[in-house]
Amino acid sequence: MIRTAVIMAGGSGERFWPLSRRNRPKQLLALTSDKLMIVEAIERIVPLIPIEHIYIFTSEILQNPIRKALPNLPPENVVAEPFKRNTAPCLAYAAVFLTDKYGVSESEISMAILTADHFISTSSQFIQTVDNALKYAESNSKLVTIGIPPVRPETGYGYIEIDTPNAEPNLICPAITFREKPNKETASQFIKSGNFLWNSGMFFWRIDTFLKSIKQNLTSVDDKLEGLKLAIHNKTTIVCDGAIPDAKSVFEQFPDISIDYGIMEKADNVAVIRAGFLWDDVGSWDSLDRMQPLDEAGNVINGKSVLVDTHNSTIINSSDKQVVALIGADDIVVVVTDDAILVCPKDKAQNVRQAVLALRELGEENYL
Amino acid sequence: MIRTAVIMAGGSGERFWPLSRRNRPKQLLALTSDKLMIVEAIERIVPLIPIEHIYIFTSEILQNPIRKALPNLPPENVVAEPFKRNTAPCLAYAAVFLTDKYGVSESEISMAILTADHFISTSSQFIQTVDNALKYAESNSKLVTIGIPPVRPETGYGYIEIDTPNAEPNLICPAITFREKPNKETASQFIKSGNFLWNSGMFFWRIDTFLKSIKQNLTSVDDKLEGLKLAIHNKTTIVCDGAIPDAKSVFEQFPDISIDYGIMEKADNVAVIRAGFLWDDVGSWDSLDRMQPLDEAGNVINGKSVLVDTHNSTIINSSDKQVVALIGADDIVVVVTDDAILVCPKDKAQNVRQAVLALRELGEENYL
Repeated sequence: MIRTAVIMAGGSGERFWPLSRRNRPKQLLALTSDKLMIVEAIERIVPLIPIEHIYIFTSEILQNPIRKALPNLPPENVVAEPFKRNTAPCLAYAAVFLTDKYGVSESEISMAILTADHFISTSSQFIQTVDNALKYAESNSKLVTIGIPPVRPETGYGYIEIDTPNAEPNLICPAITFREKPNKETASQFIKSGNFLWNSGMFFWRIDTFLKSIKQNLTSVDDKLEGLKLAIHNKTTIVCDGAIPDAKSVFEQFPDISIDYGIMEKADNVAVIRAGFLWDDVGSWDSLDRMQPLDEAGNVINGKSVLVDTHNSTIINSSDKQVVALIGADDIVVVVTDDAILVCPKDKAQNVRQAVLALRELGEENYL
Repeated sequence: MIRTAVIMAGGSGERFWPLSRRNRPKQLLALTSDKLMIVEAIERIVPLIPIEHIYIFTSEILQNPIRKALPNLPPENVVAEPFKRNTAPCLAYAAVFLTDKYGVSESEISMAILTADHFISTSSQFIQTVDNALKYAESNSKLVTIGIPPVRPETGYGYIEIDTPNAEPNLICPAITFREKPNKETASQFIKSGNFLWNSGMFFWRIDTFLKSIKQNLTSVDDKLEGLKLAIHNKTTIVCDGAIPDAKSVFEQFPDISIDYGIMEKADNVAVIRAGFLWDDVGSWDSLDRMQPLDEAGNVINGKSVLVDTHNSTIINSSDKQVVALIGADDIVVVVTDDAILVCPKDKAQNVRQAVLALRELGEENYL
């Protein structure tokens, strides 16, 4: 069995504007420690999966910035998707790519699909959960996902229902249903019941299991897979041969559909492993106070600042020229870069991309 | 009668930090229009009082910046107080200085004491009120002040009680009492009664009237006036003569007392002229929305910015490099300069000097 790690890192960098930009999205920021998130992601998995079997699938614009950030990763392992699509086409592409690359049977390769832009508390417990998940996926024809025991009634996450409440870490059980972003009341009920885990977006399977599930659940991808296989296999040998489709033209025809919606929510062979670590999707600026050290008034402070009568605010000042002063400003996010300053209440931080949209509408491309 | 205007402009520049600084206080900012406030103050009075009779009393550190801002004013008319004291000593100094300068009887000079850092709506109505005030003060031994018909129950201003409610503009009547900064409830009652006007801090008198009032009400200043007269008279002729006190050593002995507290609240010959113009003391960043144009969501916007779902906020961005983005940020003040960024809720804007104090405590003198 060849164990591979597939890290999807094609994010577009809007939610952490103005620090994140088109060519420097969240995974290329140091949000949860002093290391770039993608560096943390690699360092976290490398004790279990050798670096030559770790692959990053990303967009063309990010390929070189990522290669630069990860000098120890073979540069050819940073793969640019031929066209921007959602996670289901991306993982189908990865499955075909890896099968072609290793030249073995699809049942001889397992994939650990990991994220590059999430917070994970403890590497050793992460490794233990991933190792268990991979072992299970390698010896069972299951789509395995990591479920996170929820610690708050989060309305921004997906939930997975299981029938084994309050179990030990690393227990594996069947997924009953997937529930996308519930309202506060429902989320609270989920937590109370103990029967729901957060959907971490990390998946484990043998490639044959995955391709079979595509065949069953996502025919709009499946019926183009042969073309994709041909395109990938011939990519470097036959160029511009009209008879052989190129990967981009196949990819363009794929539906814009997520792996959760396209496969996981429909498949009947999904298993969930209960995480033994803390996890956060680091969704927006207001989430940093869950993983960064706080001052005695509950503020996250990075960079030169002076706070008066200010509580539970987050100040990220990357300017070396300007001091940031907050007076009586509770629950505020202030982010300063050389060319932009963001100010928003914490409870509006998930709307930061509206600023990006507004700037785009104004034609202010240089700020994006 | 020689009519003079005395503009007190010694403010220290803390309430409009970070735009205002030690050597660039409020009066040297363009807060209410595109002109510096001190330029507006001069332009406002010059139709009534020739520029050679307009004097600015300020601190040593501001003397040259003010001269630079007012190239048409004779530079010797920008007078540095010998020592930083309050408004009562400053005006005593001005009275003695002008008497000495013009070399006429104290009853032959009238003073219009004006402010350099307040908003005044209409120059023509201002001129009319000032002209009436001066005429009355010149022909009566009265201390005349301008009272502003209040338009909101402001708790940060002083009020003057009169016995002539809801009169016509420019009516002159006796002041009954002065009431400093009432609470909200009292302020509301003041407005309801119609018997109260805001204390504008503008005063009109003949110098003899003023000096007589000092003799009656402020002996701690009066008993040093002879020394001050000598010091001013000999300033340029006798230097370092131990027998003649210099102005600074006299000034240091003056009490730190305001003209309101030291004279106006005690004197029995105070008259009030009802203003025919709108007035605002422009006390802090949150006051700008009363005199600057607002966008359709009630925001004051100066400089490069993008606002999403943001209401009643004030954005002053003097950086030419950074765009300011506000998302869902209501009632917020954001001020950006090359070396500092202020963020505070509007209702905390009067506490801005706490940031200045905090920076001073941290030894960050370069931001002050």
